[in-house]
Amino acid sequence: MPLTGGQRARARRSNLITPFQVMALLSRARELEAQGRSIVHMEIGEPDFNTPQPIIDAGIRALQAGKTHYTPAVGLAELREAIAQHYRDTHGVTLDPRRVLITPGASGALQLILGLLVDPGSEVVMADPGYPCNRNFVYLYEGVPVSVPVGPEHGYQLSAELLETCWSDKTSCVLIASPSNPTGTLVSQDVLRGLLRVVRAHGAALVVDEIYHGLTYAESPQTALAQGEDLFVINSFSKYFGMTGWRLGWLVAPQDCVEPLDTLAQNLFLAAPTPAQYAALAAFHPHTLEILAHRRDEFRKRRDFLLPALRQIGFEIPVEPQGAFYLYADCSRFTEDSFVFAHELLEQAGVAITPGIDFGRHRAAQHVRFSYTTSIEQLEQGVERIARFAGVA
Amino acid sequence: MPLTGGQRARARRSNLITPFQVMALLSRARELEAQGRSIVHMEIGEPDFNTPQPIIDAGIRALQAGKTHYTPAVGLAELREAIAQHYRDTHGVTLDPRRVLITPGASGALQLILGLLVDPGSEVVMADPGYPCNRNFVYLYEGVPVSVPVGPEHGYQLSAELLETCWSDKTSCVLIASPSNPTGTLVSQDVLRGLLRVVRAHGAALVVDEIYHGLTYAESPQTALAQGEDLFVINSFSKYFGMTGWRLGWLVAPQDCVEPLDTLAQNLFLAAPTPAQYAALAAFHPHTLEILAHRRDEFRKRRDFLLPALRQIGFEIPVEPQGAFYLYADCSRFTEDSFVFAHELLEQAGVAITPGIDFGRHRAAQHVRFSYTTSIEQLEQGVERIARFAGVA
Repeated sequence: MPLTGGQRARARRSNLITPFQVMALLSRARELEAQGRSIVHMEIGEPDFNTPQPIIDAGIRALQAGKTHYTPAVGLAELREAIAQHYRDTHGVTLDPRRVLITPGASGALQLILGLLVDPGSEVVMADPGYPCNRNFVYLYEGVPVSVPVGPEHGYQLSAELLETCWSDKTSCVLIASPSNPTGTLVSQDVLRGLLRVVRAHGAALVVDEIYHGLTYAESPQTALAQGEDLFVINSFSKYFGMTGWRLGWLVAPQDCVEPLDTLAQNLFLAAPTPAQYAALAAFHPHTLEILAHRRDEFRKRRDFLLPALRQIGFEIPVEPQGAFYLYADCSRFTEDSFVFAHELLEQAGVAITPGIDFGRHRAAQHVRFSYTTSIEQLEQGVERIARFAGVA
Repeated sequence: MPLTGGQRARARRSNLITPFQVMALLSRARELEAQGRSIVHMEIGEPDFNTPQPIIDAGIRALQAGKTHYTPAVGLAELREAIAQHYRDTHGVTLDPRRVLITPGASGALQLILGLLVDPGSEVVMADPGYPCNRNFVYLYEGVPVSVPVGPEHGYQLSAELLETCWSDKTSCVLIASPSNPTGTLVSQDVLRGLLRVVRAHGAALVVDEIYHGLTYAESPQTALAQGEDLFVINSFSKYFGMTGWRLGWLVAPQDCVEPLDTLAQNLFLAAPTPAQYAALAAFHPHTLEILAHRRDEFRKRRDFLLPALRQIGFEIPVEPQGAFYLYADCSRFTEDSFVFAHELLEQAGVAITPGIDFGRHRAAQHVRFSYTTSIEQLEQGVERIARFAGVA
């Protein structure tokens, strides 16, 4: 039988869109666990908490009431209003709810926005290190990800100056994340204004990923929406609201982009999951927000334990991460190859972490990412094992 | 403030991917209803039944048990096995469960498969009339949809002969649907074998949309999977299993495509919704299947009422639709423009239907689609109004 649907027919993008190294690590970790080994998981980008009970209860009520049909492609009107209200309450930003589109996860939001903005050959500027799916979404649309190396001197974020160095007449879009994955650093309002100045001058678009908003441990950062109505903001119920498995996110778009985004949504996924949308209506209730504030405190405690502990072992973390649940650490004191380091740490010491290569190329072999999505007790155990492995305990 | 993220930055595909005309019609219908008008809805492509109670109950149990985290990108192993088992039980087809990938709706499945197969400029052959999102997914990836006019003489389906007439060295993929939306017709195993012969000879891929499987009213059609392990089959929990709003579908892929599809899924949507996946585990239980068989009987009754009633009014439906919940009718006895006809029927008679233009270009102005996703009583009401409107009552 001749080969069909196989090697010969495969699109070029499928060679560009690569699997995450951490997936192989995670599956090896599961294998070791199945053999009876104890593994400390510091590789996982998902909160260990279940969805808050009021949200679960709202989901159950929706199912009991038979809310199982499609919603409009842009989402439930009540939920779009609740999100707009949330921006008003939390950030003092007033927003037309019609600019809010509900999506299947932040992934759905990114897919819509880049689908609207990226032509084949379009360049999309982003920080390296950064969230790995970002460049892959650009490949999806035959665009060109322009990864700009950023280090501690830039707080691991883009700046107006860096943008100017890589701008071309094909640049269509700039993508930033605040707080960032993997570095946990923020984009200040000053830097944001600088970025917007450049983007506006060129008639391009700025996309701001705020999916870790809420999970910050000093002052609460302002949303980029405060800077104008001409940028795109992506957010999600996954991380702060603890709804990862429900697959629910949102975007806020400039008014004139809402209609074409709606059309794309109708075609790409019809609508976000209905039970999740009804459940999320409970996400902004005072009782839920209380639970979430408590969880944030817990994440802060974990960061405040893990950051000095890793530094003491000899990892360099020059910029204090202010949000998300990640520490991005220079491990060059211990290794010349963080990929090998991560694998040896797992095999020999039973600690799973993510090698830098998953976040880009810039000094990737010198970096690893630690997640604090597990209990303080587990983190203590992990730190002890890492110290012993590194020969400093 | 300069325009950003707006007109200037918009990708070419966003001009190609057009909104469905039926959306405007639906929203006008809702407006009229808000004004107190009675509207018979024969435009909607969603079963009027809620999700069967055993599936809802399983979803509630999953939420109560805190099943709110990500699943693997390819879906829950138990659900992949249950689907493989379903093919064994229903079709006698044995299937490695690892070839089954769980997706966010059939949309997610189509997106993955075309993402793997379609390069810019690749041609994807499909029937006209056909499901409108199909050509738009091809535009998404900068491919070229090749719409082949099919009429009653072909049972509104592609054939080996038709394929040969439009094949080019850029053809990467052929997309068929059985039963088809909008025509409700099937692809026979003979025709399927012919299509596969052509596709295999050219080393291309065949994608078979079986999302209306289960909703057929004569003998149960065989799955295309019986024809070999080298084709792609798309299915969904939406239509037959009544889970539209949950956004859950699946695909079956050739073994060598599973890994790259998994990588695409990790990047595009991380995973399908978790509560939906647990709920769907109850979809194959005997009690659920009983409920679904009863619903299918109800759909058959509706078809058996609507088909002769529309023919009697003067609509031509030359090929008896054998599945789905649609009748695709030639309305040229009443109009030269089915789009105008649909709008006048709504405004003057209070019946909403879908104009042919949503399904392609081939004789689109002479056709409309009637859905029987509403009760017999409503259909009777609709038929009476249409007859009066058409001047034959």
